[in-house]
Amino acid sequence: MTRDTGTKAEGKQDKKAQQYGVTPQSVDFNDWYNEVVKKADLADNSPVAGTMVVKPYGTALWENIQRWLDDRFKATGHESLIFPTLIPMNFITKEADHVEGFAPELFTVDRIGTEELAEPYVLRPTSETIIGYMWSQWLGSYRDLPFLHYQWGSVFRAELRTKAFLRTSEFYWHEGHTAHASEEEARGEVRQILDLYHEFCRDILALPVVRGEKTASERFAGAVATYSIEGMMRDGKALQSGTSHYLGQNFSRAFDVKFQTREQREEYAYTTSWAISSRIIGAIIMTHGDDFGLIMPPRIAPIQVVVIPVGRKENFDQMVEEGEKLAAELRAQGIRVKVDKREGVTNGFKYNDWELKGVPVRIEIGPRDLEQGVVVVKNRNAEEKETLPREEAISGMVARLDGIHDWLLNRATDFLLSHTVSVDSYEDLKNAIEHGNWVRAFHCGNAECEALIKEDTKATTRNIPLDDAEFFSEREEGVCVKCGQPSAYGKRVIFGRQY
Amino acid sequence: MTRDTGTKAEGKQDKKAQQYGVTPQSVDFNDWYNEVVKKADLADNSPVAGTMVVKPYGTALWENIQRWLDDRFKATGHESLIFPTLIPMNFITKEADHVEGFAPELFTVDRIGTEELAEPYVLRPTSETIIGYMWSQWLGSYRDLPFLHYQWGSVFRAELRTKAFLRTSEFYWHEGHTAHASEEEARGEVRQILDLYHEFCRDILALPVVRGEKTASERFAGAVATYSIEGMMRDGKALQSGTSHYLGQNFSRAFDVKFQTREQREEYAYTTSWAISSRIIGAIIMTHGDDFGLIMPPRIAPIQVVVIPVGRKENFDQMVEEGEKLAAELRAQGIRVKVDKREGVTNGFKYNDWELKGVPVRIEIGPRDLEQGVVVVKNRNAEEKETLPREEAISGMVARLDGIHDWLLNRATDFLLSHTVSVDSYEDLKNAIEHGNWVRAFHCGNAECEALIKEDTKATTRNIPLDDAEFFSEREEGVCVKCGQPSAYGKRVIFGRQY
Repeated sequence: MTRDTGTKAEGKQDKKAQQYGVTPQSVDFNDWYNEVVKKADLADNSPVAGTMVVKPYGTALWENIQRWLDDRFKATGHESLIFPTLIPMNFITKEADHVEGFAPELFTVDRIGTEELAEPYVLRPTSETIIGYMWSQWLGSYRDLPFLHYQWGSVFRAELRTKAFLRTSEFYWHEGHTAHASEEEARGEVRQILDLYHEFCRDILALPVVRGEKTASERFAGAVATYSIEGMMRDGKALQSGTSHYLGQNFSRAFDVKFQTREQREEYAYTTSWAISSRIIGAIIMTHGDDFGLIMPPRIAPIQVVVIPVGRKENFDQMVEEGEKLAAELRAQGIRVKVDKREGVTNGFKYNDWELKGVPVRIEIGPRDLEQGVVVVKNRNAEEKETLPREEAISGMVARLDGIHDWLLNRATDFLLSHTVSVDSYEDLKNAIEHGNWVRAFHCGNAECEALIKEDTKATTRNIPLDDAEFFSEREEGVCVKCGQPSAYGKRVIFGRQY
Repeated sequence: MTRDTGTKAEGKQDKKAQQYGVTPQSVDFNDWYNEVVKKADLADNSPVAGTMVVKPYGTALWENIQRWLDDRFKATGHESLIFPTLIPMNFITKEADHVEGFAPELFTVDRIGTEELAEPYVLRPTSETIIGYMWSQWLGSYRDLPFLHYQWGSVFRAELRTKAFLRTSEFYWHEGHTAHASEEEARGEVRQILDLYHEFCRDILALPVVRGEKTASERFAGAVATYSIEGMMRDGKALQSGTSHYLGQNFSRAFDVKFQTREQREEYAYTTSWAISSRIIGAIIMTHGDDFGLIMPPRIAPIQVVVIPVGRKENFDQMVEEGEKLAAELRAQGIRVKVDKREGVTNGFKYNDWELKGVPVRIEIGPRDLEQGVVVVKNRNAEEKETLPREEAISGMVARLDGIHDWLLNRATDFLLSHTVSVDSYEDLKNAIEHGNWVRAFHCGNAECEALIKEDTKATTRNIPLDDAEFFSEREEGVCVKCGQPSAYGKRVIFGRQY
């Protein structure tokens, strides 16, 4: 993609772009990411090791994500609650796999002021334990079930090397927790949420993701089965973008979450948990961004249209006024609009700034445009500007935003498909991974065999696509790409390096 | 207030009310409060000392509170950010008054897993320090100002004796933090927010509150001036329901929050902070509740109207269907409605349950009502049921809810005014406090003199009402009710016992 250079003036802005711009993805994807996060004002480093500060633009994006998901959780009968951030250490140790998974990462509180605590607390790494405890107080009979609970908040897992949104010691999420009277119903919930996440990614964030089940060694600590949605970033790495776990009776046994069945027997509840975290923002950045910065998927973008009054000093105020009128007409259609009224910076600076921030559509209004009843419209993903009758630009804006959504989704889908390779030999697997692809290969299901592949290639199993997954769902038989034993899953598994 | 006993059947429900009901306020206000919180499903005890679990009904109320305030913060140009929960201990110690105020209450993290930290962290008791640090990174020139920031989250101050919503070691709030280029502008912000809080309490929560300035000994740790809104609970105690602090340059000096002025000088920024916390839920409960439980102010109520299908087995389904139709028509007016479809519990149980939960309006639909085209309507605050033509009940619902709001606000205002006494002798002060009143008295402004009054009476200064406060704003001169020295404030100060 080349930069929009419709006019000579734009040519000059090209130079500015370099000055204010970011390292190209192809030069260093990691630098590109870090610079985009900072320069687009999404987040900043924090003085607390391993954490970030989410700035207004990043917070606005996260709030839009929260709003959409929250509405859907409520619409599907889920209820929001607030549980404490601190959890007694002895809760964490009750579920054996759970403590093994989290122990080294736990922030631990041993004192209040100067007073030592008899029993330490940890900052929750996730809340299955304390929610299990509360459920054991609340649950009596099958009539009380299901519990369909979730909470918004942050959790804490110490990280040494921080990467904003992707790997921070404190991160932000919702965690869903549900309890059911039967395995079937619990598994239905796990699947319902996985599908909701898939829909959210595809229809709102324009992210193609693969729905599948995790292999045993990649399961959540304490789960019977873990399902994930996996997206592909523009460097070919995978990002696990959401998970939905079937926990069986593991946590309900550990926390005595029992109920009286219709037949008057005592039974442990069947529970689930699921989450999408703030790392989904990393997926948005790394799936859609380009060498000019972010591209915000229109349906979640904090600002969908930016209006830039383009005028000299003597008519700038008038252009601002015209910009506000235009903005008001767009807002009346439910569109989120900002008018950039900054003085003391050039138009070129503004163009670059909003391109870096990924605003889907830019509208310029100048005095000559005004005379002619036109505006200049530039889609963030387009090469060229368009000059359109003002009314047409306004009446066509919703469709334009939808068009950008489709363009982003198609581009990302093409990228994912063209960077996923089916292989039948271990050499081919190593080679494809080395070149930034996912591979689809048969695997024996043996954890040690998986570990060997990881050691060789840094690639792990991403998931085993579901039979009705949008991509890679074909049922096939074959032998393990590494050890030659029969395939365990009736289909190829996806391997990839991951964030 | 006597219980609604429109019919003989209702008489029976009276007995049920006693069975499922709560301790009357006059018998034990504290028991009443704790039982209402639990039985109305607002919150539950937590296994983490000093904390609570907020249940779905309480969380829904809190979310409505958040939504209203958040919309207003954004509409007044404030931006939401997310700062870390952990703060380096050495940040807290930088502002001398600040650390003195908070040190004994700080949850402290000394290790991650088994690894000791070189520098401990604390769980934020409030975020002035870390936000000050970030501002020092972000602030360059006067053009960057003002910073109008806020965040939603929880903070941690260890409490020994827990009382849900009022006194918990972790509590929920927004904290606003702003930085300005001049004292005047900062003080304007402090006042704008205080007025916004006042409007929220009066117009949305039906809570009359007194806007005023705190005396020096009741100031926030590190503030130059603290303003509060104070409400009166039905036991005559005060509840500080929101605060807005002018911090001068105290925190900006401590954290080097400097900017270049228009005249190219370096200057420290003038900062503010402000908050309403989840204790406002305590204020709602204790201002409006009665012996039958909660009364939810209609404009914030999670459920504004509950529809109860009243039918025998053979026509229950039909009544549910009619209830859903009615609910749909009410929802079309933007009203939050629930249809209580539970089977296996009596109508009387349902009536009591929703009265305990404080739903402002109940509608009953039975087969005979249906035939006659009427419904039975009962306001939570009314003695009698009304039988109304169905259409009239629907078309009049918005006005009915507004009427309940006004009734609540008027009742609470009358209570506040009738339980506030102007006194000019110390004996009268002690006597009035002892009988559950606020007193208005002159005071010398001396902190030790204030402390003596507190020792004697457990009453503290609530605030010095502003000149344009709705209540008690008269300017007057006199001598200190305790020591006889001249009054320091040009008006009477409010004293009261407090939560």
